[in-house]
Amino acid sequence: MTSRSDAPAVKAALKTQAVETPSWAYGNSGTRFKVFAQPGVPRTPQEKLDDAARVHEHTGVAPTVALHIPWDKVDDYGALATYAKERGVRLGTINSNVFQDDDYKLGSVCHPDAAVRRKAVAHLLECVDIMDATGSRDLKLWFSDGTNYPGQDDIRSRQDRLAEALAAVYERLGDDQRMLLEYKFFEPAFYTTDVPDWGTAYAHCLKLGDKAQVVVDTGHHAPGTNIEFIVALLLREGKLGGFDFNSRFYADDDLMVGAADPFQLFRIMYEVIRGGGLASDVAFMLDQCHNIEAKIPAIIRSVMNVQEATAKALLVDGTALAEAQVSGDVLAANAVLMDAYNTDVRPLLAEVREEIGIDPDPIAAYHRSGWAQKITEERVGGTQAGWGA
Amino acid sequence: MTSRSDAPAVKAALKTQAVETPSWAYGNSGTRFKVFAQPGVPRTPQEKLDDAARVHEHTGVAPTVALHIPWDKVDDYGALATYAKERGVRLGTINSNVFQDDDYKLGSVCHPDAAVRRKAVAHLLECVDIMDATGSRDLKLWFSDGTNYPGQDDIRSRQDRLAEALAAVYERLGDDQRMLLEYKFFEPAFYTTDVPDWGTAYAHCLKLGDKAQVVVDTGHHAPGTNIEFIVALLLREGKLGGFDFNSRFYADDDLMVGAADPFQLFRIMYEVIRGGGLASDVAFMLDQCHNIEAKIPAIIRSVMNVQEATAKALLVDGTALAEAQVSGDVLAANAVLMDAYNTDVRPLLAEVREEIGIDPDPIAAYHRSGWAQKITEERVGGTQAGWGA
Amino acid sequence: MTSRSDAPAVKAALKTQAVETPSWAYGNSGTRFKVFAQPGVPRTPQEKLDDAARVHEHTGVAPTVALHIPWDKVDDYGALATYAKERGVRLGTINSNVFQDDDYKLGSVCHPDAAVRRKAVAHLLECVDIMDATGSRDLKLWFSDGTNYPGQDDIRSRQDRLAEALAAVYERLGDDQRMLLEYKFFEPAFYTTDVPDWGTAYAHCLKLGDKAQVVVDTGHHAPGTNIEFIVALLLREGKLGGFDFNSRFYADDDLMVGAADPFQLFRIMYEVIRGGGLASDVAFMLDQCHNIEAKIPAIIRSVMNVQEATAKALLVDGTALAEAQVSGDVLAANAVLMDAYNTDVRPLLAEVREEIGIDPDPIAAYHRSGWAQKITEERVGGTQAGWGA
Amino acid sequence: MTSRSDAPAVKAALKTQAVETPSWAYGNSGTRFKVFAQPGVPRTPQEKLDDAARVHEHTGVAPTVALHIPWDKVDDYGALATYAKERGVRLGTINSNVFQDDDYKLGSVCHPDAAVRRKAVAHLLECVDIMDATGSRDLKLWFSDGTNYPGQDDIRSRQDRLAEALAAVYERLGDDQRMLLEYKFFEPAFYTTDVPDWGTAYAHCLKLGDKAQVVVDTGHHAPGTNIEFIVALLLREGKLGGFDFNSRFYADDDLMVGAADPFQLFRIMYEVIRGGGLASDVAFMLDQCHNIEAKIPAIIRSVMNVQEATAKALLVDGTALAEAQVSGDVLAANAVLMDAYNTDVRPLLAEVREEIGIDPDPIAAYHRSGWAQKITEERVGGTQAGWGA
Repeated sequence: MTSRSDAPAVKAALKTQAVETPSWAYGNSGTRFKVFAQPGVPRTPQEKLDDAARVHEHTGVAPTVALHIPWDKVDDYGALATYAKERGVRLGTINSNVFQDDDYKLGSVCHPDAAVRRKAVAHLLECVDIMDATGSRDLKLWFSDGTNYPGQDDIRSRQDRLAEALAAVYERLGDDQRMLLEYKFFEPAFYTTDVPDWGTAYAHCLKLGDKAQVVVDTGHHAPGTNIEFIVALLLREGKLGGFDFNSRFYADDDLMVGAADPFQLFRIMYEVIRGGGLASDVAFMLDQCHNIEAKIPAIIRSVMNVQEATAKALLVDGTALAEAQVSGDVLAANAVLMDAYNTDVRPLLAEVREEIGIDPDPIAAYHRSGWAQKITEERVGGTQAGWGA
Repeated sequence: MTSRSDAPAVKAALKTQAVETPSWAYGNSGTRFKVFAQPGVPRTPQEKLDDAARVHEHTGVAPTVALHIPWDKVDDYGALATYAKERGVRLGTINSNVFQDDDYKLGSVCHPDAAVRRKAVAHLLECVDIMDATGSRDLKLWFSDGTNYPGQDDIRSRQDRLAEALAAVYERLGDDQRMLLEYKFFEPAFYTTDVPDWGTAYAHCLKLGDKAQVVVDTGHHAPGTNIEFIVALLLREGKLGGFDFNSRFYADDDLMVGAADPFQLFRIMYEVIRGGGLASDVAFMLDQCHNIEAKIPAIIRSVMNVQEATAKALLVDGTALAEAQVSGDVLAANAVLMDAYNTDVRPLLAEVREEIGIDPDPIAAYHRSGWAQKITEERVGGTQAGWGA
Repeated sequence: MTSRSDAPAVKAALKTQAVETPSWAYGNSGTRFKVFAQPGVPRTPQEKLDDAARVHEHTGVAPTVALHIPWDKVDDYGALATYAKERGVRLGTINSNVFQDDDYKLGSVCHPDAAVRRKAVAHLLECVDIMDATGSRDLKLWFSDGTNYPGQDDIRSRQDRLAEALAAVYERLGDDQRMLLEYKFFEPAFYTTDVPDWGTAYAHCLKLGDKAQVVVDTGHHAPGTNIEFIVALLLREGKLGGFDFNSRFYADDDLMVGAADPFQLFRIMYEVIRGGGLASDVAFMLDQCHNIEAKIPAIIRSVMNVQEATAKALLVDGTALAEAQVSGDVLAANAVLMDAYNTDVRPLLAEVREEIGIDPDPIAAYHRSGWAQKITEERVGGTQAGWGA
Repeated sequence: MTSRSDAPAVKAALKTQAVETPSWAYGNSGTRFKVFAQPGVPRTPQEKLDDAARVHEHTGVAPTVALHIPWDKVDDYGALATYAKERGVRLGTINSNVFQDDDYKLGSVCHPDAAVRRKAVAHLLECVDIMDATGSRDLKLWFSDGTNYPGQDDIRSRQDRLAEALAAVYERLGDDQRMLLEYKFFEPAFYTTDVPDWGTAYAHCLKLGDKAQVVVDTGHHAPGTNIEFIVALLLREGKLGGFDFNSRFYADDDLMVGAADPFQLFRIMYEVIRGGGLASDVAFMLDQCHNIEAKIPAIIRSVMNVQEATAKALLVDGTALAEAQVSGDVLAANAVLMDAYNTDVRPLLAEVREEIGIDPDPIAAYHRSGWAQKITEERVGGTQAGWGA
């Protein structure tokens, strides 16, 4: 709509943006009803890195890959880091998994049995060992802990156990390492969840210290929750550690970020920028399930959706907005925001890509690359990666 | 609270109540994160019937068992019916499954590809063949069909395809057979679901004819939906075919019926009775997942929960209620309902059980019976039943 | 993004679009906590028409104004129609009001007392008389009827009363008149609402006949409801009478249409076009409350938001979409839709406006016009219009 | 079901329970659509106290009355306190009101204009003055502050302003005075609310100090929120200041507590007891709107509903529950809770009432008392109390 003199700054910001892709999104996923396998899906952590490297090659802003332990367990993490580096990417956040052993039926770090809790903590500490080996900064903690029936366990005692486990892990963190605590409204527990909302995660992180931060998964809220408000609050408190991006219409649908409500994503990115979170330690990660769509192009599209929302948020005319806000002009203030949102930023992003030497159309470039055909033909036999392995 | 002269009629109604248990609830189930296997779980349809017979023995009101095809596929359904009969139960509703073949990734009867639709319809027709062999009255149709992303497929064309498939199956029904069409708000599809609400199911059933009826799964609604209102409406329209009972706090949690909101269950049963649905063709079925709790006692508890809600609903003083309603006395009318709800009906149900010759405490009787130990010891090896098999 | 050869057809469609504005949106409104009065608000139906004429003058696509009886009661409706005509607009839909008399505390057409029901029906019939006088085509029926407490009244009996009242009004309709039945999830009734969902409205309209149609208020659904699905279904059934446009984050917030979720509005307009509803008898109406923002520019903005969503929906490449859908290419199909949505259609709409001889920037033109100052100065004294009068 | 040896302790706890009733619940209330006036409604703060005294006389557990300023503004608060005392009740919590002056259209303590913020803070300080005069312990703060449209104001700046205002008021509190900060999901603001959830209230209270506590209004949460979890958490943190009890099916319906989901109320009271909140400083207040039902008997019923939930929660067999929880027996643990919930505690409460010398049936006693007739006849003329005055 408008010629903006701040285009160079916008472009510069977009060029330095980084979105981490999750290793597990390259593998199979599904619902409790069915996991539909797809051709060409990786069988090993290395093959996941191969795919992630394609995403970075075509987008230019996905330089790191999150690992999930034990799904990405290898004997030599140093070698895995080297493997990644050779393909132009780096290992990123380490994600723990304390929800798939049979022992965890009634919880992990909140389990009523101390032996199960010890096992869970041991796994979390092992993850920090892996971080030492990979050079990862962040340990992401998501707990499926909770209960299905009223009375099943004691809510408060479970908080005590949670606090104890978190403290043990926090103490183990190195000087440059962080713990990102994720909250989730519900699922797989259906009555209580031990970290159900940002307030619970915040309260625990506050007591632990500066290296404990809250991570916001955009799909993990009650219906109607204003996520950008939470983002603004956590940034104000210095407690926003990062994002797990995805989108949802109903529950934790784990669809491509920006697919369900692109305006919401824009508002979130606006608050990130407003709160100084863009060029900071805030980690921008995807956490999605591509149940029925082709995985690599879905991830490329997701990265692009984050870029488009960021570009629009960067285009908000801050001076005009502040003026309208201070003067109490509701419609004018809203119009400033909508003007940026309604702008088609795809030409701008195409320029950004050309300026960093990649194809302006990442999806088309990926399709032309022959990678999909190649992995379909080559990745035959073996066991495809998925949530179970 | 009050001595009620209508106790004999209430008892009589409770003695003739029948709740169908689903074969799959005896098998393993879980979430997309993990299926926790339990000891003693059936390996075959026959073992499921063995367990269901225990539930009926201890409750006296669970005489039929719903089958799920192909999970309960056998060579000789007549023999299976005989097997059931010998154990004191009967085969009930046939549940179709058009969501687990790889072909169904983008839908079954609504799939864009006619070949997939033909395959799905063939399966539904096969289910009617099975009904002929088992003597089942009802075919329960639940479709996981839908889309995950806006634009993925054409909403209206999918309705056309759905209508065509339903018509083909309807035509095949015998004179005493019915088609029960289930709706579900979302999951596993996350953007559109092809039968998402009672209105859609109703509209299709209306066009098909009298043998097509709507089935209400109590977990398949948007947050805040007034389910008893839907029950009252469908009964008024002569279109309530039956229930899939379970309970939920969030989405389709599939917890034990009455566990999350026993007052809601009471209100539903009140509307059932009010609308003449108790002694009618309305099918009362459970459809639950016992992910972490022992399955057989959970099903016994669920049947008891339905009984307790029914007993309370039967105790509502209809004359006093009507009087208060007509006079516009909001508090008095509400108090009549609450008086029944607040009554402890467990002594009444204990009497009912003793009068039909069973133990007044079904859970205790089951635990004393040694069945849990027996199946844990005997059912070793083989493949435990679950959603996948 | 793309140069489109269908621009002339798109422009033609946009030029013939018509959005009806509601007389009450020009008056004061608020929440149960407070109604904040605004300067310059109309005191009479005539002044509301004056304001509505401004909206039409600046947008070119708001030629009719909906009336609300008795808020817009006048002695001579013919004269009011003439007044409107002289200002370049026409009287549109007649909205009935059976929720503000003290008699309606427990309902109107569903009230347990027959005398209250008769009074309510008499008002509805009076509205048809007014339609005869104004030449309005549509009678819009919204009932606040419902109950606040379980047991308060009999759900089924209330449906019987509703059906009887609707039949009486339907019979009175002239050959060219229609009855639009609105549903609403909740509020002001908090336990049951007598027409809570599209299914209930549909079932009643179906029995009444062709002149009874369902109206979709975009704010009247449970959280997570897929509104465009309902739109597609009702169009397929020939039962979509019209829209009450507004937007919401939580309940029935009545914010400016497109303000909360512009992508949803686009999807709705896409289904309207897909189902042949754009150039048809479907009525496109606003129904909003401008509690804190200036009313006239808010309504202009709302009309523009509908236009922008429509323009984007018209730009969807139907051929490419159908091809991707049939081939089962989830990402390609989604991308076709998103390509249209991500297009900045404001330049196109500016051209459309210039071609029909109005200012390309309606908001700026309104602000330049001096109307706001004029009404603030002139409309002093008297009683400002609001929901109560 | 079971004879319980702990009945004396249960009775003792029930006899010392105290539920505060709100002065405004005796006045008229309604929705944005209509306020239905009721006969006999108080015209003055004194008449509200007269009614509240009736509630305490019949229930024995409602000794205090919350005031709302300016709705209950009087010249001499000492005299009002004496008036209350003479009628057997005391003045309780002071509720501030910074949402009904025209100045507050865009907020109060978060308003962009410092002058409006100063006015709001002055009102809050005036409320503390009133507390000094009335001897009230608690200042309850609810802010309607928020925005309706994205961009309307700056989320973070509003938090800064909120923190500043709270600090000013906190500093003014006397040694025995507390500030209770209430959160609310939405309404009357529809995009952002400045204190939307417990986490926000908690974060502010934590910084303020020990005299700042969170108040949980049971109707102020997103759909599906587990309220008892929040209660358990706040008690664990020492930050639960009190409750505003009411119930809801949809949004903030403000129905009688226990009317919509009595099982939830029981679970909340169980967590209160579990966390030591029953005999503590936690304030148990009603905050309800009796839009269509008679107000005094509705409040009596509400107090009784709290008592019944408390009685059931007190009956939970803690030893059996802990045993089942520790052993991981999901069904047994749930059964312990349900056993207490399913108990009919009305006989027990009738005994409690007789033992403290009041009628065992408060509702019947109220109806026999002739109070309703008396106030209907005597309270003629004047202006009935309502939210506006």
